[in-house]
Amino acid sequence: MSKGKSSKTSGKGQNPLQAPRGTRDFYPEDMRRRNWLFAHFRSTAASFGFEEVDAPMVEHLDLFKRKAGEEIVDQLYHFELHDRHLALRAEMTPSIARMVIARQGAMRFPIRWFTVTQNWRYERMTRGRKREHYQWNMDVWGEPGVEAEAELLAAMFTMFDSLGLDRGKIKVRLNSRGLLEESLREGVLSDRPEVFAPLCVVIDKIDKIGAEAVTEQLCDPEGGVALTALEAARVIEILSARSLDEAAKFAAVGSPAIAELSQLYTLLEAYGIADQVPFDASVVRGLAYYTGIVFEAFDAGATLRAIAGGGRYDRLAETLGGKPVPAVGFGFGDVVIGELLEDEGLWPDLKPEVQDIVYAFGPEQKPAAITVASRLRRAGRRVELCLGKSKLKRVLGDAGKAGTERVYLIGEDERARGVVKIRDLAKKAETEEPIEG
Amino acid sequence: MSKGKSSKTSGKGQNPLQAPRGTRDFYPEDMRRRNWLFAHFRSTAASFGFEEVDAPMVEHLDLFKRKAGEEIVDQLYHFELHDRHLALRAEMTPSIARMVIARQGAMRFPIRWFTVTQNWRYERMTRGRKREHYQWNMDVWGEPGVEAEAELLAAMFTMFDSLGLDRGKIKVRLNSRGLLEESLREGVLSDRPEVFAPLCVVIDKIDKIGAEAVTEQLCDPEGGVALTALEAARVIEILSARSLDEAAKFAAVGSPAIAELSQLYTLLEAYGIADQVPFDASVVRGLAYYTGIVFEAFDAGATLRAIAGGGRYDRLAETLGGKPVPAVGFGFGDVVIGELLEDEGLWPDLKPEVQDIVYAFGPEQKPAAITVASRLRRAGRRVELCLGKSKLKRVLGDAGKAGTERVYLIGEDERARGVVKIRDLAKKAETEEPIEG
Repeated sequence: MSKGKSSKTSGKGQNPLQAPRGTRDFYPEDMRRRNWLFAHFRSTAASFGFEEVDAPMVEHLDLFKRKAGEEIVDQLYHFELHDRHLALRAEMTPSIARMVIARQGAMRFPIRWFTVTQNWRYERMTRGRKREHYQWNMDVWGEPGVEAEAELLAAMFTMFDSLGLDRGKIKVRLNSRGLLEESLREGVLSDRPEVFAPLCVVIDKIDKIGAEAVTEQLCDPEGGVALTALEAARVIEILSARSLDEAAKFAAVGSPAIAELSQLYTLLEAYGIADQVPFDASVVRGLAYYTGIVFEAFDAGATLRAIAGGGRYDRLAETLGGKPVPAVGFGFGDVVIGELLEDEGLWPDLKPEVQDIVYAFGPEQKPAAITVASRLRRAGRRVELCLGKSKLKRVLGDAGKAGTERVYLIGEDERARGVVKIRDLAKKAETEEPIEG
Repeated sequence: MSKGKSSKTSGKGQNPLQAPRGTRDFYPEDMRRRNWLFAHFRSTAASFGFEEVDAPMVEHLDLFKRKAGEEIVDQLYHFELHDRHLALRAEMTPSIARMVIARQGAMRFPIRWFTVTQNWRYERMTRGRKREHYQWNMDVWGEPGVEAEAELLAAMFTMFDSLGLDRGKIKVRLNSRGLLEESLREGVLSDRPEVFAPLCVVIDKIDKIGAEAVTEQLCDPEGGVALTALEAARVIEILSARSLDEAAKFAAVGSPAIAELSQLYTLLEAYGIADQVPFDASVVRGLAYYTGIVFEAFDAGATLRAIAGGGRYDRLAETLGGKPVPAVGFGFGDVVIGELLEDEGLWPDLKPEVQDIVYAFGPEQKPAAITVASRLRRAGRRVELCLGKSKLKRVLGDAGKAGTERVYLIGEDERARGVVKIRDLAKKAETEEPIEG
């Protein structure tokens, strides 16, 4: 099939010999990096006592609609099949929530779960954005206090440390939606508490579109928030706070949100990361479901998109139809961190993992080569057995480049004597040993 | 939402708080088993010098149609989205083939790739069948000789060994489609070579439906194969062979297929697995694309479905639109092997991996508890930090059951003295050490 545009079923980008637009193939060299990164995700989570879980990539569409509303549908890979309306997950949280709810009466809280999963989002393609990505999630369910937030933030920095990113390379900006809500409770929200979630969605854009455009959207009488100019100015003023002291000016005396933030920073101090987590009242996160602390990780130069983000979502279980249970978590994608590791030159040189190559000069020595390869494998070595009529010169050349340690050679002379020749590529030395070891 | 059948969008099985029918959630205890099994897949493949690759779970529908024909569509999770017709993969081979073809000119053959991926198949549900499963694939591309088959079969037995399945528990029945083709070339296939693939699809059912029903289908004038009664009887006779000697009677003198099978068994002898791989002329595999050696692994009692299966598919690259390149591989699912491990009592007792628990008696000791947890984590320990107001009795009870090694306790007395109490759960002994280590 050509890439012809003549028919609908073979339209643009429909060459079946190419991966669908916005998706990635992982060749061995890509997969080595992915496995290296995922191993860091998993070992960091395990060092914090989190357990891995997983759920199907396909869920009922209604699960996502319950969490994020009808608007989400256009961003999903969704389809009807045999009377069911299904969708590929765009994020892991709804599936995790579903799993928690299903065993809500039977599990001992708090639970600490992590996932490393592929998520799908149908979006117009822009530079650096894909339609699938892998995401590391860590979530704590059943703990209402900010000790959970502190553990999650510490895990994130443990991850950055383990990747070799020096302190200062990443900043996690943090805020409390509770603080913003408190600050507005006497005013805007006293009559219309329902505007808080859409208000957060609008102000989340302030970094991208600026204060003026945000004000405009907040005041738009058709926009769902519809503040007065005075109210909007108050919101913008609150967002400008860059320390707890500044923020406290907008909060009531004895503000619970300020107390919670202070407690959180005390804990972050104990983890040694408080200075890496600047307070920033303009951080609210775009998702409507957050209820408390929210945070976003960026490279210090802010040249890339967000590396990770998360926060507290104490009402999700109820929203989906379960009993209330507090929850907090973060998502950490594989794409932006990969770009940062590239920019910083921190990807290690990951070579193929073959340690030994076994080479027979002719078909008569193949069984002996198998004997050698089998015993090396039983001894725990990673062994490539040369197949067919590979040329020795090429095998040795490739082995040198790939970092292979030893090449085992068996010609008719060796076989007749019951030995195999061993060439040590680092030492450039040759020895012999019996075929049987 | 109830499970009500009142409207189409909330029809049966559509409760969004349940995973879609035929799919699995992996809670921590399930995930520990899955990770344990996958680690065996990966380490076995690595010990044979295979490299891991991956491709998107979503492909253009046409990729699957090119390999398997229009009939496959009903078995796929497929959907049109924004003018593209996409499908979730039902198997990994087409994606791997696509990746090989994309770099056909640039790669050094033979290549040895493995994958561990989730595949989706829409089927009517029957007992023990799911709509998703994970599959371990190992494939060799670019090697025409049976040395590749021998390596793959050896890898499969290395896997069985590593899982603790004694020799004799698994039989891999093996045949050569080439042999069957040769045996029929002078007769049935001389006029109509195109019936070979559909013929194989019919005779693949012989174990399930018996020789009589197969004969009936082979002779059905509407059935696409339409043999004479004599031809069908000949086919059934050929299928009865259970040794190379018997099979050789149906083959021409100097048969290349018999020579190839003999060579393969010589190699399997060298691997020490020839007696585990009985020749069985009735094994042809249901998929039309196989061209040479085919094989299927079953538990020796044949109480379960096939554990793994594979074979040679030298024409797939061409079928999909690439240049010819020989290939052979197998797929090995996670479900049937899991049932066998269960039946044999071979699943290990996999406990949560937390080694240390750190417990503060009150909020004043939380920062000290963080200091202790952080240094243990830096030392490579897997540490659960107790959050909130967990009850010590409950923490200790859970720790005992979960196999935790040590519990670190910090009350006001300890904090004031700058120490932490360490309870060793195995030794039932208590010691102290400085908070800072």
